[in-house]
Amino acid sequence: MQLLVQRVDIAGRGGVIHEEDARRLGVFDGDRLRVIHPETGKSAPMVVDITTSILTSGTVALYNVTCSDLGLSDGDTVEVHTAVPPSSIRFIRKKMDKGRLTAEEMMTIVRDMVNENLSLNEITAFVTASYINGMDLDEVESLTRAMVETGERIEFATHPVVDKHSIGGVPGNKITLLVVPIIAAAGLTIPKTSSRAITGAGGTADLMEVLAPINFSAEEVQKMTNQAGGVIVWGGSTNIAPADDLIIRVEYPFKIDERGQMIASVMAKKFAVGAEMVVIDIPVGPTTKVHTMQDARRLAQDFIEIGSRLGMQVECAVTYGDSPVGRAIGPNLEVAEALSVLEGAKTPNSLIEKSVAISGILLEMAGKAQRNGGEEMARSLLSSGAALKKFHEIIAVQGGKSDVHSSDILPGKYSAAIPSPVSGYVVSLNNTGLITVARLAGAPHDKGAGIYCNAKVGTQLRKGETIYTIYAESQEHLDRALEEARRLYPVVVEGMLLDRIPQDSIELDRMD
Amino acid sequence: MQLLVQRVDIAGRGGVIHEEDARRLGVFDGDRLRVIHPETGKSAPMVVDITTSILTSGTVALYNVTCSDLGLSDGDTVEVHTAVPPSSIRFIRKKMDKGRLTAEEMMTIVRDMVNENLSLNEITAFVTASYINGMDLDEVESLTRAMVETGERIEFATHPVVDKHSIGGVPGNKITLLVVPIIAAAGLTIPKTSSRAITGAGGTADLMEVLAPINFSAEEVQKMTNQAGGVIVWGGSTNIAPADDLIIRVEYPFKIDERGQMIASVMAKKFAVGAEMVVIDIPVGPTTKVHTMQDARRLAQDFIEIGSRLGMQVECAVTYGDSPVGRAIGPNLEVAEALSVLEGAKTPNSLIEKSVAISGILLEMAGKAQRNGGEEMARSLLSSGAALKKFHEIIAVQGGKSDVHSSDILPGKYSAAIPSPVSGYVVSLNNTGLITVARLAGAPHDKGAGIYCNAKVGTQLRKGETIYTIYAESQEHLDRALEEARRLYPVVVEGMLLDRIPQDSIELDRMD
Repeated sequence: MQLLVQRVDIAGRGGVIHEEDARRLGVFDGDRLRVIHPETGKSAPMVVDITTSILTSGTVALYNVTCSDLGLSDGDTVEVHTAVPPSSIRFIRKKMDKGRLTAEEMMTIVRDMVNENLSLNEITAFVTASYINGMDLDEVESLTRAMVETGERIEFATHPVVDKHSIGGVPGNKITLLVVPIIAAAGLTIPKTSSRAITGAGGTADLMEVLAPINFSAEEVQKMTNQAGGVIVWGGSTNIAPADDLIIRVEYPFKIDERGQMIASVMAKKFAVGAEMVVIDIPVGPTTKVHTMQDARRLAQDFIEIGSRLGMQVECAVTYGDSPVGRAIGPNLEVAEALSVLEGAKTPNSLIEKSVAISGILLEMAGKAQRNGGEEMARSLLSSGAALKKFHEIIAVQGGKSDVHSSDILPGKYSAAIPSPVSGYVVSLNNTGLITVARLAGAPHDKGAGIYCNAKVGTQLRKGETIYTIYAESQEHLDRALEEARRLYPVVVEGMLLDRIPQDSIELDRMD
Repeated sequence: MQLLVQRVDIAGRGGVIHEEDARRLGVFDGDRLRVIHPETGKSAPMVVDITTSILTSGTVALYNVTCSDLGLSDGDTVEVHTAVPPSSIRFIRKKMDKGRLTAEEMMTIVRDMVNENLSLNEITAFVTASYINGMDLDEVESLTRAMVETGERIEFATHPVVDKHSIGGVPGNKITLLVVPIIAAAGLTIPKTSSRAITGAGGTADLMEVLAPINFSAEEVQKMTNQAGGVIVWGGSTNIAPADDLIIRVEYPFKIDERGQMIASVMAKKFAVGAEMVVIDIPVGPTTKVHTMQDARRLAQDFIEIGSRLGMQVECAVTYGDSPVGRAIGPNLEVAEALSVLEGAKTPNSLIEKSVAISGILLEMAGKAQRNGGEEMARSLLSSGAALKKFHEIIAVQGGKSDVHSSDILPGKYSAAIPSPVSGYVVSLNNTGLITVARLAGAPHDKGAGIYCNAKVGTQLRKGETIYTIYAESQEHLDRALEEARRLYPVVVEGMLLDRIPQDSIELDRMD
């Protein structure tokens, strides 16, 4: 059938046809068409989307990418044929019916996802089916390899290449800002790609953005890493494992994160940057993704197994996820805290200990330190100033201000100190509540917004002393956060009214 | 946040915002916004869809319905706020996690579907989760009630109101064209809504369209039924159980039809038109939805149970689904065959017997006939010409040509007779193959396209005698169908090469 092109300014591939033409072609929403340029013979697939209102019969509305791919403009004529659905539809149906997907079937699904041969609806069906029916380790391995092969990859001449990842859920977890410079200062290569916060108050990418640009192509990541030994960039602009972004997008409304998909997501990104040794930080706690030590160990085994199948050496660190790491939550506050530790501060203890522990494992895995000597080496790279020097180098190579000092990074101008209503010991910090308040204060978008925990668990407070301070960049945001803080009591002092958890407890996202 | 409106000519609700504004609002694809007209205070929900290319920051692209609902034009300013996701998201997640949905939760999901508060992705997740985890009868009942309550309903002053439905899969099943006039001729009220073929060669709506208009509002259906006692219309234009259309739309690519959703779909449509007595035709065969007698009986029990919960009397007829009903497949051919029976023809036997059997059950249920006397009564309404007279009345009330005769309805001008390659008995007719060939010939869009089965199972043929004839409205369509017919052998004569079934056997859709 010949149809007249009407270009529609919508990003992406595909388009819309009129109901009458759909009936003439014998197709329904979700069927496949092939759109062919009659002169060049170039063609593109299209998922049928039917309208009765915005087009007249005889016209096809085509979106930007399809128009560009085929070199079409308004008023051109195209040939439109029915096409068979991609076989990935059948493989998704197989997964719905509790089948096991072969490596080839998984590859077909992931390739069709990335090439926009599957609609978001169809990807949703795949993700939902995988979530409900689960994936075995063979499928997780296939998914990981498929994610890697459908995206860009980085190779390095210098070895070993190491990497770290935290599966997230703990507020204030700025350790990457310490681990990457420590590791790079030891002479190892660490091309760290990070994510922005989705439901958190600041992902590593949001933090690093305070100090330097973070949007780079895979090629630039490679070049900068070769120069400085390490980088901390946003993974979203690299086109590494792009299928993962699609999966996360359809998972997002339901706050699901299927175990197999999470493992594949993490491991694909490590494999694509050529990492040979990887430490996975698995925080355990009531608000993190993993709630018990037993679950953490089981997850760790799967990470190690998938790593081994891909030729990567993986170790997992199960960490304490009940309270924030350090005292600062929110981009500027966290960056200032991390910088101050690099500059020689001896607190906060939880941040320093977690950073040297994770760094130590990597140093031992890579043979830079003796067994049990990694943590000591990390500590000395930190106290000698070598890590700070390296961090300045990394900031410089990414285009930031390399002589930055922790005192330059200021929190928002609007602040409110929350006084303790009673005298007593701090008995709990509620991650979910702290993150909710920090987000209402404007984090992670407003870099100065966040929370500083003046007291942590075990601190003795007198009535009226500050438990924590909320920072914001506007009075409006501060007021909003304060209101929620009064409702949530994210920090509990012994003898206080019990903590109140909102009915719809939010879930926390991948931190890195 | 204040944004400038850019109206986009896309049907439906919602719109697109720029990535920068999304980050400022702290939202991601799939999050919820509320768009507020600053002067009228009117507001509409919107699912976040983020772009970086087609908009500038500070602008929101809004689709037609949202613009109309709020009275917005290009260049207007709107207030945009973050909003909490609808609670139906949580209930869908519950179904993903194998939970049982309460009546209230199901109602919330269905209402949000119909009001476009759920995206098609989210509806896909619900349908996929229900398909994999199944629904119990309480959930099926809730879904049925929710489908009814979110759509239009019809009430009649005259009682009883009766109805029939076939769950489909058998080609040539034109019995509704006989059952409705027979039942209406007996003085019962039968407001029949039907569907078009999705994967079949002709749904009841496609057939009726040959004789009269079929697109009517619920109000018009009510009025016409009051006049003629019965109608045969397309359900798609009535807004009865509109949630069902959305479910079918997302099921379509995967060719799934979850048992509970199918029962709810059928029963909601019957309940919404006020049917008090319903016969469900369940064809059993290798290419229908139900493959064994045991499955048919189980399905029948569920239909009866749901009917009883809704106060409807339901009986099920398990019918033979191995071969076409009658000899004609495709709109004009089927209509001519049905009309000829109404006009007094004594064949085809399978069509007459099935029609009077189903009609008889309804006549007995409604008390018009004695137990075991229904079939006899139906037969006499048919042979007396009362059913034909009633059918002419129905055609007239729907705006068709009431003095139509079967000889007026002609098949396509292009035809090809398929000769038997051997002498022998016809041993099988393959439904899937026949439908594929009829569709390639142009059915159901080309009304004249289809197949006439000159021989049926048991017919003795000499070599060279015609097995079946293909009709089409163009040589191109005929050639295409012939080519496939040579590959598929949809009718097997003893001694012939064995039937060849395509690897991707198609599945058949609801016939009514």
